[in-house]
Amino acid sequence: MKVVSSIIQMRKITRTLAADRKKIGLVPTMGFLHEGHLSLIRRAVRFSDIVIVSIFVNPAQFAPDEDFEAYPRDEKNDINKIKSTGGDIVFIPKVSDIYPDNFQTYVDVEIIAKSLEGKSRPLHFRGVTTIVAKLFNITRPDIAVFGLKDYQQAIVIRQMTRDLGLPIKIIIAPTVREKDGLAMSSRNCYFNPEQRKEAVCLYESLRIAKRAVKDEKIIDSAVLKGRMIKLIQSICPTAEIDYIAFTDFESIIPVKKVNKNTICSLAVKIHGVRLIDNMKMTGRGQLL
Amino acid sequence: MKVVSSIIQMRKITRTLAADRKKIGLVPTMGFLHEGHLSLIRRAVRFSDIVIVSIFVNPAQFAPDEDFEAYPRDEKNDINKIKSTGGDIVFIPKVSDIYPDNFQTYVDVEIIAKSLEGKSRPLHFRGVTTIVAKLFNITRPDIAVFGLKDYQQAIVIRQMTRDLGLPIKIIIAPTVREKDGLAMSSRNCYFNPEQRKEAVCLYESLRIAKRAVKDEKIIDSAVLKGRMIKLIQSICPTAEIDYIAFTDFESIIPVKKVNKNTICSLAVKIHGVRLIDNMKMTGRGQLL
Repeated sequence: MKVVSSIIQMRKITRTLAADRKKIGLVPTMGFLHEGHLSLIRRAVRFSDIVIVSIFVNPAQFAPDEDFEAYPRDEKNDINKIKSTGGDIVFIPKVSDIYPDNFQTYVDVEIIAKSLEGKSRPLHFRGVTTIVAKLFNITRPDIAVFGLKDYQQAIVIRQMTRDLGLPIKIIIAPTVREKDGLAMSSRNCYFNPEQRKEAVCLYESLRIAKRAVKDEKIIDSAVLKGRMIKLIQSICPTAEIDYIAFTDFESIIPVKKVNKNTICSLAVKIHGVRLIDNMKMTGRGQLL
Repeated sequence: MKVVSSIIQMRKITRTLAADRKKIGLVPTMGFLHEGHLSLIRRAVRFSDIVIVSIFVNPAQFAPDEDFEAYPRDEKNDINKIKSTGGDIVFIPKVSDIYPDNFQTYVDVEIIAKSLEGKSRPLHFRGVTTIVAKLFNITRPDIAVFGLKDYQQAIVIRQMTRDLGLPIKIIIAPTVREKDGLAMSSRNCYFNPEQRKEAVCLYESLRIAKRAVKDEKIIDSAVLKGRMIKLIQSICPTAEIDYIAFTDFESIIPVKKVNKNTICSLAVKIHGVRLIDNMKMTGRGQLL
């Protein structure tokens, strides 16, 4: 396995791979890899000849008051995990190479990136689409794999890819959860054991909503939302709910009545740590 | 020579060319080709194995009150000209394929695209960088050629290309002029013969400024600008001057004193037709 930090070198490698007609898979990450990331890598391995995993904690997607500096990093461990999961190349560019002095170009998705996460974190998706476009241009993958946990991000990136004519298939892979149901996230490491227990409230609230749809045939979003808020507060009384939204999976337009394309997503601050999660409100699994 | 309108077909062709390690040159145009465009094509022929010329009148770079509908079109003639100039592929995508329903992604260059043309035409460059990024993604050229007449456009595109990590060399080719000095432009066809004569005032004003720098050692931008305004008004009394700017060639930052990196650019409405032109204020030629 190769570890590459130079953009020029990365480009040379992908140019050669393209000339050899290899199918390239990209898994963009911010490092501090957990089982969720590894499942993305496994999926890329299944669908491509060469798997590139990028590690880049992207300053452009953090607001000044967010945790860019504190974001956990562990490159050495990450490299070992990628190797044992079947990755072929780890691309770890420097911030100063990605954003040189005088950098001033941004890729912006307008409609679907403005609600939910885009409303709470105004420049977040602009940072995400810009870095992903740049990683796409440098590595030129045939497929790229993103996690369903960051569902809106995956939809926004798919839109960007289509709109800008990038010949890349975006694969969305299911959320991997801890034993109690908490969605895996690099930010889970911020909790002490007591706090960690309460973090399960996001998952539990999604479960009771889905169960209410299935067992009680409740499809009114407001009613479901009310139940979710109650449950969250019962598990974590100090939880600060940013949003709970029932939307169409593709368009991210809010729906009043749950239907087969409805996904519920939420963002909640648990003891100072902002977590997100989501679940389709019908069907068995979470797979897309 | 091939004429391609399907994005999928264009992509297949460029994929094959890349696998064959051919060097691809792209000349993006809005059609209605004149000698200026043909000089760009010749330059692309010189620096690449396969030359693609795109023809696309891009609605996203016209404001609602501008001349998108009226913009002159003559595809048949364009195709013949491209063929006889050595182009290999003409790419003529449909507006509905480039901007399908639900299109919502834009590429925006922030600083250098906000002055001069960007100030007078607020969404113009966003339209330009978005379409050029998309054409780059579809055709994946190694080089792309733009004309110096649209100098700020060329600089903005070069910035976008660098910032987004596109492995494409941007070549800026000198302005081609009519016998009297008027910069060639598809919009020159809007004039009647009387109006056409007055249109030379842009070029003449640049010439007297450059001569004042050379012969009289005048380097004060305000003084030069005053002389240019006078000259324009003497040739075309009804001229509406949008801007006359002395700026650094690369950064597009205004300069008070002309130096060797200074370019003077201007936009003037002549009998309802908005023309632009520019000239470096020192050195012999206009070549970059």
